[in-house]
Parts: sequence; structure tokens; C-alpha cells
Amino acid sequence: MEDVPHEMNAVVLDAYTGPASLRIARRAVPRPGPGQVLVKIAASPLNPSDIAFIHGTYGFRHPPPVVPGQEGAGTVVAAGEGLMGRYFLGKRVACLKMEEGDGMWAEYALASAMGGVLPLDAAVGMEQGSMSAINPMTASAFVEIARREGHRAFVMSPAAGSLGRMINRLAQLHGIHVINVVRRKAQVDLLLDLALVALNSSDEDFVERLGDACLEHECRLAFDAVAGPLTHQLLSAMPHDSRVTVFGGLSKEPASAGIEHLVFEGKSIDGFWLGPWLLKKGPLGILRLWRRAQALMSTALQSTIRERVPLEDAPHAMRAYMDQMTGGKFLLIPNMSVSS
Amino acid sequence: MEDVPHEMNAVVLDAYTGPASLRIARRAVPRPGPGQVLVKIAASPLNPSDIAFIHGTYGFRHPPPVVPGQEGAGTVVAAGEGLMGRYFLGKRVACLKMEEGDGMWAEYALASAMGGVLPLDAAVGMEQGSMSAINPMTASAFVEIARREGHRAFVMSPAAGSLGRMINRLAQLHGIHVINVVRRKAQVDLLLDLALVALNSSDEDFVERLGDACLEHECRLAFDAVAGPLTHQLLSAMPHDSRVTVFGGLSKEPASAGIEHLVFEGKSIDGFWLGPWLLKKGPLGILRLWRRAQALMSTALQSTIRERVPLEDAPHAMRAYMDQMTGGKFLLIPNMSVSS
Repeated sequence: MEDVPHEMNAVVLDAYTGPASLRIARRAVPRPGPGQVLVKIAASPLNPSDIAFIHGTYGFRHPPPVVPGQEGAGTVVAAGEGLMGRYFLGKRVACLKMEEGDGMWAEYALASAMGGVLPLDAAVGMEQGSMSAINPMTASAFVEIARREGHRAFVMSPAAGSLGRMINRLAQLHGIHVINVVRRKAQVDLLLDLALVALNSSDEDFVERLGDACLEHECRLAFDAVAGPLTHQLLSAMPHDSRVTVFGGLSKEPASAGIEHLVFEGKSIDGFWLGPWLLKKGPLGILRLWRRAQALMSTALQSTIRERVPLEDAPHAMRAYMDQMTGGKFLLIPNMSVSS
Repeated sequence: MEDVPHEMNAVVLDAYTGPASLRIARRAVPRPGPGQVLVKIAASPLNPSDIAFIHGTYGFRHPPPVVPGQEGAGTVVAAGEGLMGRYFLGKRVACLKMEEGDGMWAEYALASAMGGVLPLDAAVGMEQGSMSAINPMTASAFVEIARREGHRAFVMSPAAGSLGRMINRLAQLHGIHVINVVRRKAQVDLLLDLALVALNSSDEDFVERLGDACLEHECRLAFDAVAGPLTHQLLSAMPHDSRVTVFGGLSKEPASAGIEHLVFEGKSIDGFWLGPWLLKKGPLGILRLWRRAQALMSTALQSTIRERVPLEDAPHAMRAYMDQMTGGKFLLIPNMSVSS
């Protein structure tokens, strides 16, 4: 611990009211407890789950002021008691926040040595590594869920963001067809530039066209992070015995489902949250999935970076990200002048 | 076929617009095709599914004019080609409509010999027999679903109608606790008279009280025929990993589900429709369930009769039923002057 300072810069959230409550602050560098490691953060992205977190609609809260940031990458510089923590000492890792407490938008962050840190492949740099937990593991999970249940196609909504594109590439590797749904014409064009076809849920004939596509590809599974009335539209368009798995709520409205689709057509809605899904797989299952994902980090699971920003620009970057969620990731770089 | 007339009285629906489109008419008595039987109907109840049917919101439609009536009881007076049909000749049966076409609100009705008719126990009269398919089999299904999945309690919504009370009695026989939900204070009192406790979803502290009850009884399953915002309330109140099974839409609104409950709490919504659920069990499975239900027709699965009415009073009875769905069943009796 000798070269770890006592204080650090961190982004803190003072209230669960959005980007206006974000500020930069000096905080004590936390000390790892038993089973924990301290990671010197090299990079940490802005994700949709961070938007939910700073608005208080994520799966866990912590009394503010709290440091946001659901994932990141860095080097383990200290470990608390326990074998696993010592194993990670000095290693380059990705961190995934699976519990309450402070996150990764800081110079240093604590993480659990049992599942909260995962070793980065030598070929994976810190920047891609900082984005290798949430989106790549979610994409891997969706493809695994589809394969395990024998689906040859699924609907992805929304498809225009980083995760959507990643899922298209990964599904293609596994011979699974993805039916892309976006919410604006501009996003249809954006995906067309990547040679991907997308249906626009704002179009009048959307449900009909989605119905045709689902019929053609025998598609009975949808992953939906928009929810609200779109969930109802997905359910209406899909064939009998289909399921919509909700994993976000960009529409900010409850998911809606027509009685006729639930009762008479055998359709259902459930939810997906990466953390518990991973935990159910157990440490070995996670590691297997992680290894496969790491091997694809420079191809199918690569993320595009829109802008690298220092911690103090987090509020501004968050506003820009919320204004336009396509076009690549914002990366927070804690020691930007030093590291870049 | 010698004593079967050529013409009969039947209730017909001219458009899927509700009770105003019901009238009495003379219709040709249908002839059973291969695998079909002709049943001389003794009694046929008004069910919630009939309300849905005459409004065009049920799982199947048929070009009008069409005879409504999802279930009934009577005597098989003719059979088309096939062993099963001949087996039922002369027998007292309950009929359950599992497909498009004319229903049971008539002097005679066709039914499939493979699953559409079920033999009545000698101890079961025609009137109870006419109500022995939909509610008793639905109650049996809910209890079977709960037991198979290891639930020791479930929420029943709404609980004040015939099905609700039946489910309370049947669940009690199997040691399963039922948490009753109703929509009005009067229904709380009504159930209290039967020594049943019910929560009123119109009360301000409903979600909190339901949450307490679910916690106390480790209840993670709800059967919901109201849907709309109530589905959201049920999901919010129930513990993690709970499921709401929607089997009707009395609220006339789509089921609503908060993103946080789907994503972060592992909750889900699916649907239940008796016909397909039975068909999945296969003929032997249906018969086993049927035998057990028939044995309880004069106890746990007995229905209360509010009023016996001739076919020509169907429109009036339907309006009265829609005005107040508690207080027992309306029974249509095709040959009332003769049979009663």
C-alpha cells in the first residue's frame, strides 16, 4: 500500500436527481476489507445503468454522497484478507459493481475479490477492458439464453447503441438472427451504414412488419430495454408462446402487456439483471463466459469510444450521453494528463 | 336421431358488441360430424369468459350470428363417426367449448368427442354439472400449478366471485393459503361473512398490507383476472422472484409492470387459459383431474345459483350479471317450463 495516497479525486452524487447532482470531490482512498481489493482505476465508461443509478431507479442505492460507476478497469494495488484478493494483487482487472456502495468513477475503487474483479487478457487494453464487463457479458448472456432455449432468432430493442451492435456481431458468430428495433429514423440509417436492418417502432406499420419478420425467422424471444408501450407492441407482433425479457426502462414507463396476448396467446414477460444472472452461474461459470468474452474483445465485443474525459467533466459528459446514447461510449479517465 | 327436432331455440349474438346484440332465434339443429356429438343442453351458465366473448375480446371469435356459451351440461343424443362419440351416446355430460363455432346457449349443441365432453358423475346433477368444467377445472388447475411449483400460498384476484370462493375451499383442502384481493369494500364484507379475509385494492395502504401478507406466507404466486394497474400493484407488493399469472382482464386495461420489479427483483408475468392448459395434459391427465373435481362437486367445487332463466331472458340476465358479478351464477335453462 505504500504508493497509494490517502486522498483521491472522485465523482460524487449528492442526491438521486440526475447529472445536476454530480460533482468532483476529494475523498479518502478506501482500505480493502476482508475479501476485497483496491483497484487503481485506469478508465470507467458511462453506461445506461449509470443513468438509472444517478436518477435513483437502479437496483440498488446507497445513502448519498456516493461515487457512481458500475464498471471500470485498472490495476489491483492492495488486497484485504483472503486468498483471492492476494491472487489479484498487481493484476490488471475489470471491475463490476454487484452491490451497494461506491463505484468506479474515482481514482481508486474497492471491489469484491469474489466476482467483483475479473482478470483482463494480456491483449485487452485498459480502455476496452473497462467496458468488458457490462455490455460484453450482457451480450454473451443474451446469446447464451437464446441458444440454451433453442431460439434461432431474437428481437433486440433498442438496437442502435453499443450493446445492440455488439449483440448483432456476437449473435452472427453463433448463427442466430437478430431482429433490430430502434425508435427513430436516424437510427435506422445509422444501422444501415453498418449493413444492419432495423425496424422503426415509430413507424405506423411497425407491429405488422415486426410480425412478418418474427414469423419469417420463427422468433419467440425479445430483449427489451425500452419497455412502456413498446413491450405491448413487441408482444402483439410476436407469435404465440413468445417471451419479452425486459432489461431496462428507457421509456420511463411501466411495461405494458395486452391481456389477450398473455391469456390467449401464451406470451409472457420477465426481466434480466446481469449481476444475479452471473451469480447464479457460479464462479466457474462466470470465468468460462468471461474467457470467451475476453477472446472477442478486439472483434465482436469491441466498444467504440466517443470521447475520453477527465473525472471533473463527468457531469457534462453524462448530459451529452443522455442527449444522444448512440455514437460510442464516454470514458472517464481519472488521471488523464498522466495516462494519455 | 329420431326424437331430435330439425329446429331449435338458441341465443344468438349478431355482433361482438355486448348484450345489446343478443337475441333469441330459431336455428337448425346441427348434425354431428366425425368425432363430434350432439348434446341436448339441460343448463348452461353465464361466465366471465362469456362476457369477454360477446364483447369480442375472448381468445376466439366466429363470424356472427353465433351462439355464445362456453360450457353447459346435457345428454348426448347423437354421435358422428368415431368410437369416442358412440361411447358417449345416451350419457350425461358436461361440455367445454375449446374451439370456434357455436356454443351452449341453445337447446342443442355440438361438442368434440375428444375433450369437448366429459362424463358427469351419477351424483352430479345437470345444474352443477353445467358449471363443472370452467370454474372447477380452473380452480383445480391453479391449485395444481401452485403445488407442482412448491408454493404454499398464492394471491387470488378477484376473490369475491364464484371462482374465488371455490379456490379458497379447494386450496384449504390442500393446505395452501390464499391471500384474497377484491376491488370494493362491499366485497370485503361479503367474504368476511364466509369467514374469509380479503384485502381491498382500493385501500390506500393496499400494497403495504399485501406486502406484509405475502411476506408472512412466503407468497410468490398470484392469479389475476383484473390486470391493468392492479398487476403492477401485485408485482410491487410481492417478494423477489414472484410471478403474476393473468387469466382475465376485468379492468379492461393492459397489464402493467414496473421495470424495477421485472429487472431488479426477478418478477415476471405470464398468462393462463384453461383450454390449452388442459390440452397439454393429454386425455388421461384431463380425466384424472376431472374425476377428482367431480368428486368435489357437491362440496368444495359447488357453485351457488343466483337465478335460473329461460333462453329468451339471456340478454337481461347478461346485463344483470355484468352489473354485479358476485352473488352466484345465472343459469340458462333451454326448456324451463318442461324441465323445472
